[in-house]
Amino acid sequence: MLEVEAMRWEGDALLLLDQRLLPHEVFWVRCETYGQVAEAIRTLTVRGAPAIGSAAAFGMALAAKQALREGQSVLEALERARQILAASRPTARNLFWALERMGRVVNGHAALPPDELAARLEAEAVAIYREDYEANLRLSQHGAELLQKDVKVLTHCNTGALAAAWGTALGIVKVAHRQGKVKTVWVDETRPVLQGARLTTWELLTEGIPFRLIADGAAPYLMSRGMVDAVIVGADRITCDGSVANKIGTYGLALSAKHHGIPFYVAAPCSTIDPNLPDGSSIPIEERSEEEVLSWHGVRVAPEGAKAFNPAFDVTPATLVTAIVTERGVLRPPYEQSIAEALKAG
Amino acid sequence: MLEVEAMRWEGDALLLLDQRLLPHEVFWVRCETYGQVAEAIRTLTVRGAPAIGSAAAFGMALAAKQALREGQSVLEALERARQILAASRPTARNLFWALERMGRVVNGHAALPPDELAARLEAEAVAIYREDYEANLRLSQHGAELLQKDVKVLTHCNTGALAAAWGTALGIVKVAHRQGKVKTVWVDETRPVLQGARLTTWELLTEGIPFRLIADGAAPYLMSRGMVDAVIVGADRITCDGSVANKIGTYGLALSAKHHGIPFYVAAPCSTIDPNLPDGSSIPIEERSEEEVLSWHGVRVAPEGAKAFNPAFDVTPATLVTAIVTERGVLRPPYEQSIAEALKAG
Repeated sequence: MLEVEAMRWEGDALLLLDQRLLPHEVFWVRCETYGQVAEAIRTLTVRGAPAIGSAAAFGMALAAKQALREGQSVLEALERARQILAASRPTARNLFWALERMGRVVNGHAALPPDELAARLEAEAVAIYREDYEANLRLSQHGAELLQKDVKVLTHCNTGALAAAWGTALGIVKVAHRQGKVKTVWVDETRPVLQGARLTTWELLTEGIPFRLIADGAAPYLMSRGMVDAVIVGADRITCDGSVANKIGTYGLALSAKHHGIPFYVAAPCSTIDPNLPDGSSIPIEERSEEEVLSWHGVRVAPEGAKAFNPAFDVTPATLVTAIVTERGVLRPPYEQSIAEALKAG
Repeated sequence: MLEVEAMRWEGDALLLLDQRLLPHEVFWVRCETYGQVAEAIRTLTVRGAPAIGSAAAFGMALAAKQALREGQSVLEALERARQILAASRPTARNLFWALERMGRVVNGHAALPPDELAARLEAEAVAIYREDYEANLRLSQHGAELLQKDVKVLTHCNTGALAAAWGTALGIVKVAHRQGKVKTVWVDETRPVLQGARLTTWELLTEGIPFRLIADGAAPYLMSRGMVDAVIVGADRITCDGSVANKIGTYGLALSAKHHGIPFYVAAPCSTIDPNLPDGSSIPIEERSEEEVLSWHGVRVAPEGAKAFNPAFDVTPATLVTAIVTERGVLRPPYEQSIAEALKAG
């Protein structure tokens, strides 16, 4: 079985599997400049918080190589690239985490010859991507231990290998499936971009994991009928108190899970935790184009003249989160304490 | 301003505005037989519980005329028509209510000459449609009194003049708008059939009522940000204890509204109340074709091989319902009592 992957590093280019075209077309976009990487992040060619972080890191490596090739100042190019990449999307913490990590390499080695700095940046980007894989595999093993045999899992958006190396929430499902534990997966289609319908289904088919796709609004009904044993979602940003920004629709799932006494697990590597934000109230929430709601794949659904509102994320308060599954273990409330300890262990 | 209507009775045919093609195409389907009416109900050419009831009543009137035309037994044709129409969709109470009402005319006048019986059935169907308009206009006036100035209303599915003569939940919004009270309407797109995105938007544009379309998953986020003052939905069946079957996604809205202290109103004529069902546990919930979820407005979204689960309705328990707005007044808990009184007043 071939493992699904969202990106491939070729030394002079980053190949991105175009997630806008999946599942009907498998097409790799070749990015040779940081600008192309930033554009790919902005347009959702690559998405998923950890994958965005890795892509941005490779974007910084490309910026250094570009400047070398064109005989320009590598340090100036890196600062421009950092700004452009940081502006590509606002909510996912991993983007800024990766840029900060690349920035520390720049700052620590600014005096090196430019080609050596470029080599170090490339090595750091490769390390970020490889470590993401290792972290997500480890958190998936921790998460699978939380699940009973014949578990019926409900998930939202896409949190598989397309969103993060190996996968986060869906990584847990993959490990649990290999342990023979998964009875079925309920896949929220995840409007408006349909990451569940297009990407999660595709990954589950690839893995041979049984699933059923549902409209987002059906999840509370399934919970009320005893058809869901656990909800597992990913995260775009986790604050110090355990608040979770994730794909729009997550908060409603958490409210419903709480009402039905169903555990609500958030799976994310520690790179998703924002040590600068004390709580969820200050997480920047991206508003995307109205067209994502008014149309799909060029098919207009709403009448001409209709307007839409399209927040891409919502914030789930820590009180609704049963546990946060990280590569450093399963964090439980009170999250101020367990998150602080996990960050210290890094 | 032309009033939106879902059907027109022409004496020898029922014209149905094809709600599958809206908002892009305004096309009237001509039904000259009860079989065509049943098919139109089954395929969602006409939908919305009260509109289904009226259409079925006209279907019975057509069955009598058909039999007369073809020299067949009118009583036998009516029994066949009743069975076929009753099997068209399972959840909406109004369908069975209308068929029972037409059945009482058949039983009460079976000894009449067939052409006189047919005339009485036509008159009864016209009365059902006209009374639905009057009931919904009256309940809309009651409902509008519940709303404050500058109210921000959230609604689900389509409950306007396409779903019920004049409209139920959206009828309330129309009356409140004419009273200058409505600041904005948040319209859930309502996957999988997109009645919100296609039909409610179209009606609101026609009425000049300000609105924004949202993905279904966004509603709890809007509530958490103080952007929703009231949720108003329709109903497909209400049981004696105040449980409400309505379009899938309603239950999650009710849970979220309760959590945020936002009133959750259900608007329906008394013909939606099922006096035979004590509680929500025994409401038959329609499961529709997987294709509605696997595709998005005719465009295949999920990969080949993917399976879906597509319950068309869910059940909201009475504990989450602030009030049920009917033509006989605003019913409040305890619903066993207020519903029994409303039914007695009929």
